[in-house]
Amino acid sequence: MYALPIAQLIEEFAKLPGIGKRSAERLAFHILKQPKDQVERFAKSLLAAKEKITFCPVCQSLTDSVPCAICANTKRDHGVICVVENPKDILAMEKTKEFSGVYHVLHGVISPMDGIGPNDIKIKELLVRTEKEPVREIIMATNPTIEGEATAMYISKLFKPFGIKVTRIAHGLPVGGELEYADEITITRALEGRHEI
Amino acid sequence: MYALPIAQLIEEFAKLPGIGKRSAERLAFHILKQPKDQVERFAKSLLAAKEKITFCPVCQSLTDSVPCAICANTKRDHGVICVVENPKDILAMEKTKEFSGVYHVLHGVISPMDGIGPNDIKIKELLVRTEKEPVREIIMATNPTIEGEATAMYISKLFKPFGIKVTRIAHGLPVGGELEYADEITITRALEGRHEI
Repeated sequence: MYALPIAQLIEEFAKLPGIGKRSAERLAFHILKQPKDQVERFAKSLLAAKEKITFCPVCQSLTDSVPCAICANTKRDHGVICVVENPKDILAMEKTKEFSGVYHVLHGVISPMDGIGPNDIKIKELLVRTEKEPVREIIMATNPTIEGEATAMYISKLFKPFGIKVTRIAHGLPVGGELEYADEITITRALEGRHEI
Repeated sequence: MYALPIAQLIEEFAKLPGIGKRSAERLAFHILKQPKDQVERFAKSLLAAKEKITFCPVCQSLTDSVPCAICANTKRDHGVICVVENPKDILAMEKTKEFSGVYHVLHGVISPMDGIGPNDIKIKELLVRTEKEPVREIIMATNPTIEGEATAMYISKLFKPFGIKVTRIAHGLPVGGELEYADEITITRALEGRHEI
């Protein structure tokens, strides 16, 4: 049997997603080999992240300021809300430097198979926002999966009575991708989304 | 950009072996979703393991008592030392309940390709042990890799002048394994190690 402190550390690592028993052992032994200050830095960063990071009360993204830097930015167009599944998606969008509106993070998608309904993701919070602020357009940027599409449709129908335009980002061949290697659904989407040149 | 505490946590996770940038992000976001007491438990277990676990001064294994429980056990045969690569290997050996001697952990193997020479693993500590105690046999249980074999050979030659018997554990078909699925090296070893029945 491992000494108790090792066994407990292995157990903690094994609780992380995608980390099995053997990986947890490997990580625990790695920690034991590290200098003490490195392990302390790791432990501190865990506690600091948990303590300082909260959900932005406006867009539901993760932030260390309230509201988050994007929601607090008056230069951005608060009339256009881009709806994404996860906080990480905001980063991907921001990298393009093409979007000057604001965001809303759902923290998931509607997925009846997994028991996730509309009340389990941050749709109610989106409704509250549109009541407070004059929102012209909601851009649905959920992923092109069955659940992502269904969530986009659900939100589209939800906001139609309010006269708010709901759009969906385009899907098609990735730039630099080759037709030969694209799957049928992507090609179908690329055909559907064709435009005159 | 991520808020600083998130970026730092991602960075810390990415330092772990086998954890890439994307896995580190996933783990960091998982931590942010956990209840505070769970994150505190994780951080504490990191510090506790690092603080309480040391190397046994005799066998070099990881332990929370000095010397470790196996080295302190007078009922075990201290004249037979089983040499393994890693502390984990001791667990595998102990599960068999067939070995009543003591252990020595090398913490690696000689691997010139990776710049690891005899002085980089705990061979010196093994020499010191054999000087202090009357050792009859050293059983080399390093893995059946090129480096594991080379290390076994090196230690065998090192102890020959001292009149200490150095043996190597047998390699062959695993029990329950099928010839059909065994690799050539394993079959070769199984043939070389054949004995009359």
